[in-house]
Amino acid sequence: METDAIRLRGCGILIRGGAPSPYSKMLADLDYARQLDAQDELAHFREEFAIDDPDLIYLDGNSLGRMPKRALARLREVAEEEWGRRLIRGWNEGWFTLPQRLGAKVARLIGAEANEVIVNDSTSVNFFKLAVAALHARPGRTKVVTDNLNFPSDVYLLQGTLKLAGPEYRLEIVRSPDGLIVPIDALAAAIDERTALVALSHTAFKSGFVYDMPAVTDVAHRAGALMLWDLSHSVGAMPLTLNEARVDLAVGCTYKYLNGGPGAPAFLYVRRDLQESLVSPIWGWFGQKRQFDFELTYTPAPGLTRFLAGSPTILSLAAVEPGVDLLLEAGLDRLRVKSMRQTGYLAELWEALLKPLGFTLNSPLDASRRGSHVSIGHPDGLRIERALIEDMHVLPDFRYPDNIRLGIAPIYTTFAEIHEAVARLCRVMNERLYAKYPISNPQSAILDP
Amino acid sequence: METDAIRLRGCGILIRGGAPSPYSKMLADLDYARQLDAQDELAHFREEFAIDDPDLIYLDGNSLGRMPKRALARLREVAEEEWGRRLIRGWNEGWFTLPQRLGAKVARLIGAEANEVIVNDSTSVNFFKLAVAALHARPGRTKVVTDNLNFPSDVYLLQGTLKLAGPEYRLEIVRSPDGLIVPIDALAAAIDERTALVALSHTAFKSGFVYDMPAVTDVAHRAGALMLWDLSHSVGAMPLTLNEARVDLAVGCTYKYLNGGPGAPAFLYVRRDLQESLVSPIWGWFGQKRQFDFELTYTPAPGLTRFLAGSPTILSLAAVEPGVDLLLEAGLDRLRVKSMRQTGYLAELWEALLKPLGFTLNSPLDASRRGSHVSIGHPDGLRIERALIEDMHVLPDFRYPDNIRLGIAPIYTTFAEIHEAVARLCRVMNERLYAKYPISNPQSAILDP
Repeated sequence: METDAIRLRGCGILIRGGAPSPYSKMLADLDYARQLDAQDELAHFREEFAIDDPDLIYLDGNSLGRMPKRALARLREVAEEEWGRRLIRGWNEGWFTLPQRLGAKVARLIGAEANEVIVNDSTSVNFFKLAVAALHARPGRTKVVTDNLNFPSDVYLLQGTLKLAGPEYRLEIVRSPDGLIVPIDALAAAIDERTALVALSHTAFKSGFVYDMPAVTDVAHRAGALMLWDLSHSVGAMPLTLNEARVDLAVGCTYKYLNGGPGAPAFLYVRRDLQESLVSPIWGWFGQKRQFDFELTYTPAPGLTRFLAGSPTILSLAAVEPGVDLLLEAGLDRLRVKSMRQTGYLAELWEALLKPLGFTLNSPLDASRRGSHVSIGHPDGLRIERALIEDMHVLPDFRYPDNIRLGIAPIYTTFAEIHEAVARLCRVMNERLYAKYPISNPQSAILDP
Repeated sequence: METDAIRLRGCGILIRGGAPSPYSKMLADLDYARQLDAQDELAHFREEFAIDDPDLIYLDGNSLGRMPKRALARLREVAEEEWGRRLIRGWNEGWFTLPQRLGAKVARLIGAEANEVIVNDSTSVNFFKLAVAALHARPGRTKVVTDNLNFPSDVYLLQGTLKLAGPEYRLEIVRSPDGLIVPIDALAAAIDERTALVALSHTAFKSGFVYDMPAVTDVAHRAGALMLWDLSHSVGAMPLTLNEARVDLAVGCTYKYLNGGPGAPAFLYVRRDLQESLVSPIWGWFGQKRQFDFELTYTPAPGLTRFLAGSPTILSLAAVEPGVDLLLEAGLDRLRVKSMRQTGYLAELWEALLKPLGFTLNSPLDASRRGSHVSIGHPDGLRIERALIEDMHVLPDFRYPDNIRLGIAPIYTTFAEIHEAVARLCRVMNERLYAKYPISNPQSAILDP
């Protein structure tokens, strides 16, 4: 679609107002990006993913990760060989323990023990199970604390949980002063001896702000509250240390940086020493002790198995494993280093090229407090995003009212792609390609479950 | 594995005690079974399924249905083309409405309107949502009625729901006098003006007993209670008339007669006029009105969408559709006629050949009160089942303590297979092939989620 010449010209023109930024020459130089890619020791992992359209720049791995080639092979195997040929025997030949076996792998991504994670059900369902269990584990405490940067689904789930719990329960939503971060002091002021549970997203879905997990968990514990982290926008993009931080509870999705497939089953973590004292509200037979005895009284299974409910969705679960394997092979420390360099590169491009065009940076400048996506804002954001998709073959995503998220998946995103995406964005602005699109309803924007 | 000669000799010997049954010659005659298959107008549907081992007799379609060839093709398409190439755009190109679109097809299987069914989450999770919603819709009523033929998971889920609801709630489990059926009078005696909910399996998982849905629903309604049917062992094997029977609530799985794949997502039905008055306890973002507005206060979506929670598991959902399509093409009336003939044929074979060997019939004799599986009992049932699997290449399933289930999936099971399965069972008994197996723990039997 683009040639280097157009790109350079485009960016040159777009540094409006006369003096080009000191970075502009280096940053507008595709060779520089290519050099960064050549030095990238993780570059070969890109070949593990199905990428058959090199012109498409995919910056939405923070919503739906790309498909690992091995996932397609694994799906075929589980369908054709296991379901098709082994039939019901498949349950005894691996399916039955898949939530736990896959959980043990995810545990290595989040700094937990093998028996502290299971994979099944959605993030929402798992969050609900843990929130209800947490309130029952803290009788007499009637307050739950969260923040307004949290993914709204988590807030809804808390509201629903408190509705079930009774009228004396209430939710306190700590407000971010700038929409980007929440200072730990503001949280600490809200957490007190009436607090049963603190539930936060580790990385904020919109700004990409990353909480200090050990520090916040410690604040919750000092007040006697349980801490529940939603790791959906963190897991797979950075190392996490749940055990070290003494985290009580966590959930996270597998369809973002874990590349597990659309709507892939989520994981659930409960610290080992808490497992026997917590009970899921959903008493399904996969959480029953000796489920094939078919007794008519529920007795929770030992350990984390009690947090299973119905039959595991085997096809979707099977597709999750290859993406997790790839992350373990690449190593989260290395992925985090690359991710920080890439979001840093993007922030520099913003400073040099996009800020002069009226874009705000809606993510923290400090890379250590930022996840693996960078949000930029513009009053015409929705139409600009539309032009990127329709005219420029760039796929970011959009968050109402004005926020374009540019997601970096360090396991397959290249520096050259980031460079090219910014160049195409420059062209959208320079040629006002967005102007032909109506200001439309956010519901009609690219949906991003 | 077997030749006709062995089979006939085996059965001849096995009609112990001298005089052969009047049916024995006809029934032991494979040609008779083949003649029934030749007359079967649904026979060609078998070709739609992946069956590459003609010697394997699969009688567990009531636990996990066979794989439709189209499901493999569809899985490949959704992974390779939609996830792999369309990436996040897949949500706007069909995934987003898949729970509703697939629900509209399942609705045709159960006698409901298109907007009365959604597919996602497990049967357990869906059952929980509806049970909690039902109790909130009948404030002041503190009793729930079920029976002891119900699938234990449903009983556990009710126990968990009542635990959440408060100490004043209680569950009444109506007992079957014979373990086979529950007389409607026994149910009616338990349902009173304190009853909020009656929750039953339409077809009992063990005996195969089928309730009179309109009559029982009417009993619940006359007492002012809501009626929740678990259709897992009925749907796809017989026509159902939920609207005509004025059923309030229902759930059902898609991995049995719907042939949707291991642990495939389940469906949830709420009668149209009740939908706006019921609220799911799990307030996830897919149940939120205008979810992409990202408001921080939960407002349930209109209609049945409010009973969704997290992101739909697209890969597993996509695999469900081909099996549903096949059932719609075959037609449930025709499938029910064939199923009744096949379970009737099996009951005749039991009478002539298996009863004399000490097997009890653990299913109703009246075909109209029987689902699509036939249970037979034997004190050595577990070891006999093991010999069928290991030595005879027959796959039934087992229900503790002594119950062998022989499942008929009329869309692909043949009369010849039923004949052959009984012949092989005769051989297991005649040659005492089961005697070498230990009496083992039911947990180690073929698992059957």
